[in-house]
Formats: sequence, structure tokens, C-alpha cells
Amino acid sequence: MIRNPNLDTTAASGDSLDKASTGNAGQTESGVSNQSITRAPFPGSEKIYRPGALHPDLRVAMREIKLANTRSHFDKSLDRPNEPVVVYDTSGPYTDPRVDIDVRRGLEPLRQKWILDRGDVEALSDQSSEYGRGRASDPKLEELRFHRTRKPLRAKTGKGPSGTSGNGAVTQLEYARRGIITPEMEYIAIRENLQAEMIEESLKRQHPGDARGAAIPRIITPEFVRDEVARGRAIIPANINHPELEPMIIGRNFLVKINANIGNSAIASSIEEEVEKMVWAVRWGADTVMDLSTGKNIHETREWILRNSPVPIGTVPIYQALEKVGGKAEELTWELYRDTLIEQAEQGVDYFTVHAGVLLRYVPMTARRMTGIVSRGGSIMAKWCLAHHKENFLYTHWRDICDIMRAYDVAFSIGDGLRPGSIYDANDEAQFAELKTQGELTEIAWDMGVQVMNEGPGHVPMHMIEENMRKQIEWCHEAPFYTLGPLTTDIAPGYDHITSGIGAAMIGWYGCAMLCYVTPKEHLGLPDREDVKVGVITYKLAAHAADLAKGHPAAQYRDNALSRARFEFRWHDQFNLSLDPDTARKFHDETLPAEGAKLAHFCSMCGPNFCSMKITDDVRAYAKEQGLVEAAALEKGLEEKAKEFVEMGAEVYRQE
Amino acid sequence: MIRNPNLDTTAASGDSLDKASTGNAGQTESGVSNQSITRAPFPGSEKIYRPGALHPDLRVAMREIKLANTRSHFDKSLDRPNEPVVVYDTSGPYTDPRVDIDVRRGLEPLRQKWILDRGDVEALSDQSSEYGRGRASDPKLEELRFHRTRKPLRAKTGKGPSGTSGNGAVTQLEYARRGIITPEMEYIAIRENLQAEMIEESLKRQHPGDARGAAIPRIITPEFVRDEVARGRAIIPANINHPELEPMIIGRNFLVKINANIGNSAIASSIEEEVEKMVWAVRWGADTVMDLSTGKNIHETREWILRNSPVPIGTVPIYQALEKVGGKAEELTWELYRDTLIEQAEQGVDYFTVHAGVLLRYVPMTARRMTGIVSRGGSIMAKWCLAHHKENFLYTHWRDICDIMRAYDVAFSIGDGLRPGSIYDANDEAQFAELKTQGELTEIAWDMGVQVMNEGPGHVPMHMIEENMRKQIEWCHEAPFYTLGPLTTDIAPGYDHITSGIGAAMIGWYGCAMLCYVTPKEHLGLPDREDVKVGVITYKLAAHAADLAKGHPAAQYRDNALSRARFEFRWHDQFNLSLDPDTARKFHDETLPAEGAKLAHFCSMCGPNFCSMKITDDVRAYAKEQGLVEAAALEKGLEEKAKEFVEMGAEVYRQE
Repeated sequence: MIRNPNLDTTAASGDSLDKASTGNAGQTESGVSNQSITRAPFPGSEKIYRPGALHPDLRVAMREIKLANTRSHFDKSLDRPNEPVVVYDTSGPYTDPRVDIDVRRGLEPLRQKWILDRGDVEALSDQSSEYGRGRASDPKLEELRFHRTRKPLRAKTGKGPSGTSGNGAVTQLEYARRGIITPEMEYIAIRENLQAEMIEESLKRQHPGDARGAAIPRIITPEFVRDEVARGRAIIPANINHPELEPMIIGRNFLVKINANIGNSAIASSIEEEVEKMVWAVRWGADTVMDLSTGKNIHETREWILRNSPVPIGTVPIYQALEKVGGKAEELTWELYRDTLIEQAEQGVDYFTVHAGVLLRYVPMTARRMTGIVSRGGSIMAKWCLAHHKENFLYTHWRDICDIMRAYDVAFSIGDGLRPGSIYDANDEAQFAELKTQGELTEIAWDMGVQVMNEGPGHVPMHMIEENMRKQIEWCHEAPFYTLGPLTTDIAPGYDHITSGIGAAMIGWYGCAMLCYVTPKEHLGLPDREDVKVGVITYKLAAHAADLAKGHPAAQYRDNALSRARFEFRWHDQFNLSLDPDTARKFHDETLPAEGAKLAHFCSMCGPNFCSMKITDDVRAYAKEQGLVEAAALEKGLEEKAKEFVEMGAEVYRQE
Repeated sequence: MIRNPNLDTTAASGDSLDKASTGNAGQTESGVSNQSITRAPFPGSEKIYRPGALHPDLRVAMREIKLANTRSHFDKSLDRPNEPVVVYDTSGPYTDPRVDIDVRRGLEPLRQKWILDRGDVEALSDQSSEYGRGRASDPKLEELRFHRTRKPLRAKTGKGPSGTSGNGAVTQLEYARRGIITPEMEYIAIRENLQAEMIEESLKRQHPGDARGAAIPRIITPEFVRDEVARGRAIIPANINHPELEPMIIGRNFLVKINANIGNSAIASSIEEEVEKMVWAVRWGADTVMDLSTGKNIHETREWILRNSPVPIGTVPIYQALEKVGGKAEELTWELYRDTLIEQAEQGVDYFTVHAGVLLRYVPMTARRMTGIVSRGGSIMAKWCLAHHKENFLYTHWRDICDIMRAYDVAFSIGDGLRPGSIYDANDEAQFAELKTQGELTEIAWDMGVQVMNEGPGHVPMHMIEENMRKQIEWCHEAPFYTLGPLTTDIAPGYDHITSGIGAAMIGWYGCAMLCYVTPKEHLGLPDREDVKVGVITYKLAAHAADLAKGHPAAQYRDNALSRARFEFRWHDQFNLSLDPDTARKFHDETLPAEGAKLAHFCSMCGPNFCSMKITDDVRAYAKEQGLVEAAALEKGLEEKAKEFVEMGAEVYRQE
């Protein structure tokens, strides 16, 4: 499965970004190369770090985009500087040229001290998972292995939430309920505010939203974060064994987040590709990454990804469990699955998709569907249920699973194994039966001190999307919703990032907290580097459109900054403020490559004499000069000024 | 402006489609080559033609997609054929290999007889436009010129709607009011129904829509078409001088339509490129095409486009008028504009965008905007108004314009010159002031017997879109709405086909009748061939998503057919049923190029042993075999069957 490590697979995607080599570049003994890791900083941008107040040692990472001065055509004294724009940054240290990165060493464990300071975890002498220990001691895997020095952590016993026995709960939910504002919570509060110092100014230039029941405050305080986590309305996926991550939050009253999937399969991919895919996905805006690998060596691949990931990593443990039984769903057992959960929890996976809502009695509901069960996890569990004429063991062992999750603070993403796989199957009996069970499971997990979000569809026509959100909020008690799209039509394979981006933007507006991306290759093939980027950017813009519609205070200022840059023909600013500066610049340069064109007061669509923005600029400058802003003045004064304007106009329209 | 005609500019786009040369291929004396015209039929498809009942000579073009048989894993006797699927086809004769095409001759004038049979038009001895005659007699233009043999037609006088003087009205609106069902109306009724013979079957497998006030019947009758046109709720853009077009309708109670813009500018493009761009745009689904050329020779370019276009062509006549005065807006006059209208009307342009709602008193309302006036037409008229301290001459001459339009049946697309150019400017005073004036102009045009639609925004966050639709319906008396997007965020230049595709799908659902496409190059540069295709497909899927949400009876059957093909691993059918078969196939083949993979019961995402669709298929086949569809049976019978299933499952999961 591991390809020749000298083969730079990333270069083949046609991407032209610099890949700065860092530290000890080149091929390493593990076969994983630093050369393939993308490190170019964003153009015109600087990585900045903001300190905490409650936790002064926090360094909350953001990206600051510098802007050029506004220049007047008419009067140089009107020139003025533009404040830099701060944007949310998921890219981690990779885009900070001051940070030395070595993928063999992994990222700095910035949360390690916070975790240990809480005094409720213990370092284990070895992995608790039998499978994990087997992989660790297999000499054949030596060259594949990430050489981790830290021991796995687990909750000390006897520190769990009152009323439940078993492991202690070292979860953000449990801390929040106890009234503790963790460093993670303060980090998130600072991170979500973005332009807090300019918020009053920003809000003057923002449309009031239609929040559809969300309750987003003007300023996100650490206490607000704590409270939302305590009531289960938001989660902070942050395994104690993944100290490298930069804390983030998923909840309806925060910025809408997106997830990107990566993963090797039986057909293609290698470890180094997977690590670079993760770096590439977070570069463009993935808030979390799910590792959906199904091939061999997924234990080792996952370790490399986790040690180098600044964002939470999610998995579907049943995939690996199935690998362990040679793909025979009926041979899955609770014991094997349990060992897999522990194996992955001790590696540091931040959330697990668990298809515990696929109940035996729901399976026949799918028989008359157009496209049956399309969730892999769902179909595996359906098969298991039918083969054993027994209830889904994930459901029957739910409390046991919770007990494991809370010992590491792994959050649930309760899977929607019966989600619709076609427009025809949308919102049917099977789907909603499972959603109700997801709600039941949510309450149990909360009782056990575990953080929860719920997964959702899938394929849903536009007019049936809101029903999904409404039912999820009601039945799952406001736990965050995390949907795949939904796709709003099935007739455009090759464009399903768009068919689903439409549904994603809408459900984000209606209250969905995280949107799982879909790439152009959905239903057709494995996404390559360019597909991952297109999928991430599409979902990032959908999430942002949702934030705008909800009236999130940290949303419209970026649109405003870009619109103003566009109107003022600050081309570099327009590129740099965009979600994908490289593509914006490339598209511009295809028509007008000369550097001078980026200073020109026109663009290629209309040419120099026909630019509507330029005409408007002229009209406005003239109107302003003449004090003609008011309609009354306009009517009164225009007649005598008309000749003058014609002369001036004739000058403005230089023939070039 | 005309490039070397030997340079095949289309080949440079990386497109690999066959370009079948037809008849006398190669370079012609006019410099326009048949070689550059795309003619490949769609894969697995046949062009079919349906006859009329009222007008038996009608040949209504559609595309029929043949499907493979459904094959059962388990029992060959369950194999069954699948009915072909009929889809709406805008591509004209170009995709019918039986039709001989020569761009120098133009398409067959299929409407010519219908038009002449009405007996209300006269052939003119020469063009009425002074400019048009000048171009026709300029020997320097000889090699650029399309050699048209037909004389221009115009309404006979004295046949206009009662109560108005001036030219006769040879408009579909006027006929509809008189109770006449024209061949155009019957053509449209047949075209819109698509699968009329299977409608009852289709509706059983379709979600009820949320029509938001639309009133779409089960079957579109010719009488329904007539009635919708008569009440102004739909238009049939069909100039009597464009007999080559295949009639189509734009209205809230019909399939949502899309428009693609083409046009050379001062920077790039040539005539042959423009003709091929049109053919290329209609191939992928453009229902109308706007020619927004602003360079030289636009008169000749337009003639080539019209003579070869199977879809209605729209223009913005003020662009050409401005060219005629050297780009000096203040030198525009009514007389010059009038001559331009007549010039274009006699060429056969089917609808004109006229920015008559940009009133002098509205201009100052834009001064405090983020991005002023972004419509080219709007800014030209604003400049003219300010320069002359006079009311917009398009407004003051509205009745004169109507009198010209009705003599040729050119429909209005009343421009929204003050549409917002940024999220910040959405739904502001200037925009809505103009919309109200659009409503006033609509009523006058109707009085004069002219068909009308209204143009709309632009840039609008999701939660403010519906207000646009609601106000337009109310203020413009249900005349069709035709919007540009709207873009739902400004932060993703390079992806504005998607930011706007989201808004387009939503406003289509809310009642917008036609969506003007946006390409990935929007705001950045001129769209190339690939951009045009991506823009068209994006809008086609948005329009279809809207049709699904409205519950249009001719919408979901295509999703169902594709979903079923997907579930049954009929890969070729899945490609062929999609909006873009070439891309779907290409994406599939990038991972699994072998022909055998298209017959395989798995895809590259999960590999042979992990495919959820395959697992479901197995589960369902087994459940069916065992009579286990009912939950009761399942509970009773499963235990004893469990062992058998395991054995069978082991067989199903062949290791490959």
C-alpha cells in the first residue's frame, strides 16, 4: 500500500504552490518526507497570536491580511490607509514560516501542560489495546512507524461524573458542568471573536441576520463557551492524547464549521499522501478532518496524521474493526470493536462516528428504498444485525462505549447509518426512526459525561431540508448537527460539491453546526489534491454564507473588506482577502497577466472604457465634489453644472 | 478584433470532444469555420422529435437516453429492461448527426412558415436601421458578413392591440390575449411535459413540492401556455426575424430556465469563437444566450450568432449604442438608441435588456453604497442622467420603445441598473426604488402588447433573497423574474459560480423564472470555454434543484433514474443520465480506467469488499428472498436463517 516515497505524488496534481522544505528535509527513514508538506504562507498575510486573559499563556492563532491604501482618482488628500483584516485560520503552524516543522517529530503539544495541570489523568506504561501493542512490537512495521515518545494518557479512575460508575470523565463537558473555564474554552472564545476590537464598527455595516432560533452573542466570552458546552449545545473535540490540536468548537451559536475527509482505500494512497492531504485540507479551511482509511496500515497512518494535525481528527472505528475481521461484517464482535476504540482513543482521535442508531427493526424499512443503505457504517451494522438476528451491538453496548469515550474525552458523532442516498429516499421512515434513536443515545451519553454531535443527511431536495434541522434540534435536544451536504439533486455527478454546497449553505443557516464536505469526485472516484481543495473551499463559502444569513457578528466584515477592495480596484487586496487567493490571482492573470493590470482601474471583462465600477466611481466622485448627494441638491444644482460635467467626463474617458 | 481564423481557439481549452466537421468544412471566405463547431451527439442518446396535435407539423426536439438492463446478482429471471429517459434539450440540431449544418447558411428557419401564415407581417425591402444599412453596404466588411437571404420582417401597421396607436403587435402576448394558440405555444407545451406519457408513474415516485405560490399543473397543455402568456406570467421570446429558434418559455409555472452570457470585449474574442461559444453554451443547457459584445463588429457577430442559434438571443442595446458614440455616455441620444433597437430587432434579437428604471432621482441613493452602480447599463444611464440633468431617456421614451418591440415581438428584460454589487448593498433603497419603477414600466408594456420579464440581483445574503422575489411578484404583477445569481457571499472570487449557484437555486425555488449564469471567472476575467461549461452546468443543476423543490412534475424522474442506475452499478447509465456525462466519466476513469470497472459492482471509493451499496444490495436481496421485508417476518424467521446467511455472505464477499 505504501508507494515509493520518492514519488512526489502531490506535485502531480498540477499545483504550483511553493513547498518550502523545512529542517531536515528529504526522505526519512520512515519513508515520510518533509518535502511533500505544503508550507507556503498566505500572500499578504501574517500569522498572529493573541494572548488569553484568564490563561495568559494562550497563543490563539489567527491570520492577519494587510491591505493597501485607498487611493482617490481626484484628490490625493483623500487617500487613506485600510486596517488589516483578521480571519479565522485552521492551517496550524504550517503557514507560519517562523515555525520549524518536522513531520517525524510532530507538532508542538500545546495542550499537554493544560491537560496534565488538571491532575485527572495518568500516563499509561503501554497502550491498553492489544492490537495497538501488536502493531508497536511488529518489527516489519518499523519503517512505517511514527516514533512517539509520550505515553498514552487516560482518566484516573474515581473522577467520573457523579452517579455513574466506571472511568473518570476528563471531558470538556464535565469541566463545563463543574463551572470550570478550561484553557481550551478561552482559546475558543478568542478565536471565534476574530475582530472583537472592531465589533461595534463591524456591526454598523452588517445586515441583521435571521438566526432561526440560534442565539449568537455580540462577543463570545469564555463563560459563554463554557455554558454552551455544559448544556450540550456545543462540543469541543479534544482528546487528551491529541495535545497538538488548536481548540475549536462545534455548535449552532458559533461560526459554522466544515469537515474534510481523507483516507486511503484498497485502490490508492500512501501515508505521506495522507499526511499532506490533511495539511492541505486544513490550509484551505477544514476545521476538522476525518480519517476514513480502509486499507492496510491504517493504525500507522492515523498516528502520523494525529501527531501532525492542528485540527481535531475524527474516525469511524467500525471501518478498522472490519479490516481486522477480513471484511466479514458478521464476524465483528464487541470485544474486537472495544479494543479498536481504545486503540484509537489512545492514539488521540478526537471524535468517533458510531452507528449505534441502526436498529434491527429499522433495517426492513430500507428495503423499499431507491438506494437502500448508503452509509458504509450503516450497511455493515445492518448486515451484522441480519446475520446474527440480534440488536446492533453498538446500541446494546452504548454505555460501555461512553465509558471509554469519557476516559479520553473522545466526542461522539452519532452516525446516521440510514441516511438517504438519493433524493427519492429523503426524509423517510428509516431516516427519521434512526434520528429519534440518535436523540435517545445523546441523552445517555450526556448522562455519562460524553460530548455529542449527531450526523445527518445526505440527499434532500431544498424544500425538505429544514424539516431535518427542526427534528434534529427537537429530538436530539439541541446537540450539534453535522451533515453531509445535503445534495439537492442527483443529476450532476462531477458537480456534487455544488449540488451539496447548496444544501449545506441552507442547513447551515437553519442551524447545522458542521458541514461535511463533498468533493467533485463524490460517487465517481477518489478525490485528488485539487478535488480536496475545491471541496474545502466550496464548503467554506457555504459555511460563510450561512454565517452571514444567521447574522454572525464575525462574518460580514470580510465581505465588506473584499467588496470595498473590488470597488477600489485594489486587486491584490481582493485576491488576498478571498478564500483562495491563488485561484483568484490565476484567473485574473489568464486575461491580464501584466503586473500593471493589477494596478489598473479596470478589469478584463469590460475593458478600460466600459467599466461600470469605474463609471460609478466617476459619478460618485463628481456628485460628492458638487455636494450633490442629496436629491434636492441634485435637482437644484445639476442644470448649471451639466456642461462642466461633460467636459470633465470627456477627460475621464481617456481613450487608451 | 478578428483573429486568425486558422487558429482553432476552441482546441486550446483542453476539451477532448469530437468536433465533427460537416458539409463544406474548413475555413470559409467569411473567416468563420465549421470546424470549430462542436457537433458530437451525447453518449447513449438519440435526438427525438415529437409531433403536435393542434399543429401536426411540429417536430419538438428532445433527447432520449437509452438505459441498460437491470441485472440481478441472485436471479437472472429478475433481470429487466429500463425505459429510456427523455430530457429537455437545448442543444438544437448540433447534436443530431442526421442534420447537415453549415454555419454560413445558418439553421433551418423552422418558424418561418408559422410567422408568415399569421399574415400580419410584411417583408421589408431593406433594413430600416441607418446603421444597419451602412454596415451592409461597407465593402470592408464583406469577409466578415453573414450572407442572409431573407428580408427583415416587420408587423404590418394597423394590426396592433386596440386602444394604442403605432405599429401592429405581432407578439405572442397579443395572440394569447386573442385566444390564439400559436404553434410556438403548442411546441412549448410538448417540450415542457417531457415524460407526459409516464407522468402518473413519475408522480408516484416524486416528493410533493413546496411551490411557494407557483401553480404548476400536472400536464402542461397548449391552452395553459396561452393563458400564462396572456396574463403576463410567462413570456415566449421569439422575434419574427429569428425563425431559427426552437420555442421556449420563461415563467414561474414552467421549468426554471437559465441564461448564459457570451460576448467579445475590448480585450479578446473573435466571431468564430462567439458562434462556437453559443453552440457550446446551448449544448450544456443554456435556454437563452445573451450576446454582451462590446468590441468592434458586433453587428456582424450578432448576425452570425442569430442565424445559427436554436435558442432565443438577448442583448443590451445600450452597449452598442455607446460604442457608436465612442464610449461617451453623455453623447447618447434617443435617435441613436432608437436606430440601434431597430437594427437589432430586424436582425432577430429576441429580448432586449433596457435600463429604463434608473431614474435621475434614484442615482444619489447609490452614493453611500459600498459598491455604487455595478450594472454597466445602469452606470451608463446614471452618467447620462447626471450629465444632462434630465430624466433617463429610456424612461421618457418607454412607449416609443414598446412600439418598436411589438412590431417584431422583441420581449423586454427590464434591466436592474441599480442592482447591488455587494452583500453590503443588498436590498437597499436604490434597488427597491428601481424595482417599483420596473413594475410601472411592466404595466405600460403590457398595455402596448409587449412581453416583459424583470431583471433582478446580484449580491444578496441567503436570508434576504426571498424578499426580492416577494416584492418582485407583488410590484411587477407576476411578470417573470430573471436574476443574476444572487451571490450569497463576496469572499470567494474564483468560485462565484458556486456562491451564486446557491442563491440561484433558492430564488428559483421561491419563484424566479430564469437564472442568469455566473462563471468561475466572474469579477476576475473573461470566461473561457471551460468556464462557460462550468457556469452552465452549475446553473442547470441549480435550476433543477429549484424544480425539485417546487415539485415540478417533470423533475424528479431524472434523479430517480440516475439514483437507480447508481444503486445498480449501471455506470454508463449513471454517466449518460448526468448533466455532464464527459466529466462524470472522466472522474470515474481517473481512478478506475479499465472498461471492466464500469461493469464492476463497486467503485473506487471503497473498493470491492467495502461498498455500502453492494452490501445493501446483498442485504436486500437476501431479505427479499427470505420474505423478510416485513418487520414481523424478520423477527420470527431470522434466527433459523442466520447460519445460512453467514455462509452465503462468505460467498458474496469474494476476496479479489
